[in-house]
Amino acid sequence: MIQVALCPSEIRRISATDLTETTAVVFDVLRATSSIITGLAAGVESFIPVRTLEEAQKLKAKDPGLLLAGERGGLPPKGFDLGNSPEEFEKVKGRSVILTTTNGTVAIDSVKSARHVLIGALLNIDALANYLFTHHPNNLLLVCAGTGEEFSLEDAIAAGSLVARLSGDEGLSDSAMITRSLSEQVGDDFYEWLRHTQNGTSLRKIGKDADVRWCAQFSVMDVVGRFKDGKISISTD
Amino acid sequence: MIQVALCPSEIRRISATDLTETTAVVFDVLRATSSIITGLAAGVESFIPVRTLEEAQKLKAKDPGLLLAGERGGLPPKGFDLGNSPEEFEKVKGRSVILTTTNGTVAIDSVKSARHVLIGALLNIDALANYLFTHHPNNLLLVCAGTGEEFSLEDAIAAGSLVARLSGDEGLSDSAMITRSLSEQVGDDFYEWLRHTQNGTSLRKIGKDADVRWCAQFSVMDVVGRFKDGKISISTD
Repeated sequence: MIQVALCPSEIRRISATDLTETTAVVFDVLRATSSIITGLAAGVESFIPVRTLEEAQKLKAKDPGLLLAGERGGLPPKGFDLGNSPEEFEKVKGRSVILTTTNGTVAIDSVKSARHVLIGALLNIDALANYLFTHHPNNLLLVCAGTGEEFSLEDAIAAGSLVARLSGDEGLSDSAMITRSLSEQVGDDFYEWLRHTQNGTSLRKIGKDADVRWCAQFSVMDVVGRFKDGKISISTD
Repeated sequence: MIQVALCPSEIRRISATDLTETTAVVFDVLRATSSIITGLAAGVESFIPVRTLEEAQKLKAKDPGLLLAGERGGLPPKGFDLGNSPEEFEKVKGRSVILTTTNGTVAIDSVKSARHVLIGALLNIDALANYLFTHHPNNLLLVCAGTGEEFSLEDAIAAGSLVARLSGDEGLSDSAMITRSLSEQVGDDFYEWLRHTQNGTSLRKIGKDADVRWCAQFSVMDVVGRFKDGKISISTD
């Protein structure tokens, strides 16, 4: 069965259920998971997702070799090495990065009890589909990280693109069906749709249209990120 | 702004926010709100939605003139006068009906603090659109009642059909955009889509395909139901 947690309240509800037989894929397309996939593809050793600024700073103090990255309100917090623009992570090679964002890293942490936790973006849909074809989990949960408390369309577009690659009608929940239907409407016009979402509009207002364009690239990175033992690194399974 | 509460966890979250300047439209297409609209169109005086079987029975004991209707697991509870099939309410004229269902009546109760609470179904989309054109609320909340804890596709189809009639892109939340996109995929094939939803499949399994067909009729009833002072009756505004 493929299910989709459409919004943050739904992630909280599902995170309290038994996920030990579930593979979860977390999407925060604008921008956390797109940044993670970009970084992993470019040579970042690992990402350490944390929920709060305090946790992030504490971890950095303990291990100054780590880079500190993330956002609050779309911008890098004071004293951080990096923000949350995917292109910033292209230049980071062989380092590990502490990452804290409003929704993406929270969503990853919420489903950490799942058997496998994968990182999803439009950038790596085909890589995810290949991974899932090989591992064929019985229960697949696609997690749309959202924005604050709200549902985010771009996460559902990515989730739906993955659903469309995986299956026929068998084993699709209603939530999977609405995202697949959305991805059929979107077709190849990812950028046009992303720029009109609430996140896309907000990012363009703070001068980050380049980020929206970057995150709208489809299946250009052959990388699956996996969260395990507190760290996200490339899955070699 | 048009927003959509896509699933039960989201209804609970939103019900705790300030709704005093919001008009809410509650959709439980299979079948509670379709039964209510059918009943009101046929001459039911009012529906009294209650959350629990106990409340329903207590109310009936106090006023034996009321009819007792509803479902648990799709079937009428023991001792009830009526179930939750829309066609059952076609024969009821001039009576008031206590109604308790798993999700629909709970969703209605959840948003009772809204300025206006309207009852929505595929059956009365054009009537709702006309009402909203006349009253043009600043904040419109479309509530998808769902099934148990799950998102239900048929409620999102109805919500999206209403969004499509109301507006251009201005003032559409991401949640409104996904439902509108869904309704564009559905086109006029309401029955085909409804029968493949999880609820549609369950209802067909218990021999209630006729209910699914009934609820898939589009804009055939020129009735707006309004919940006020604990009762749903036809809005004459």
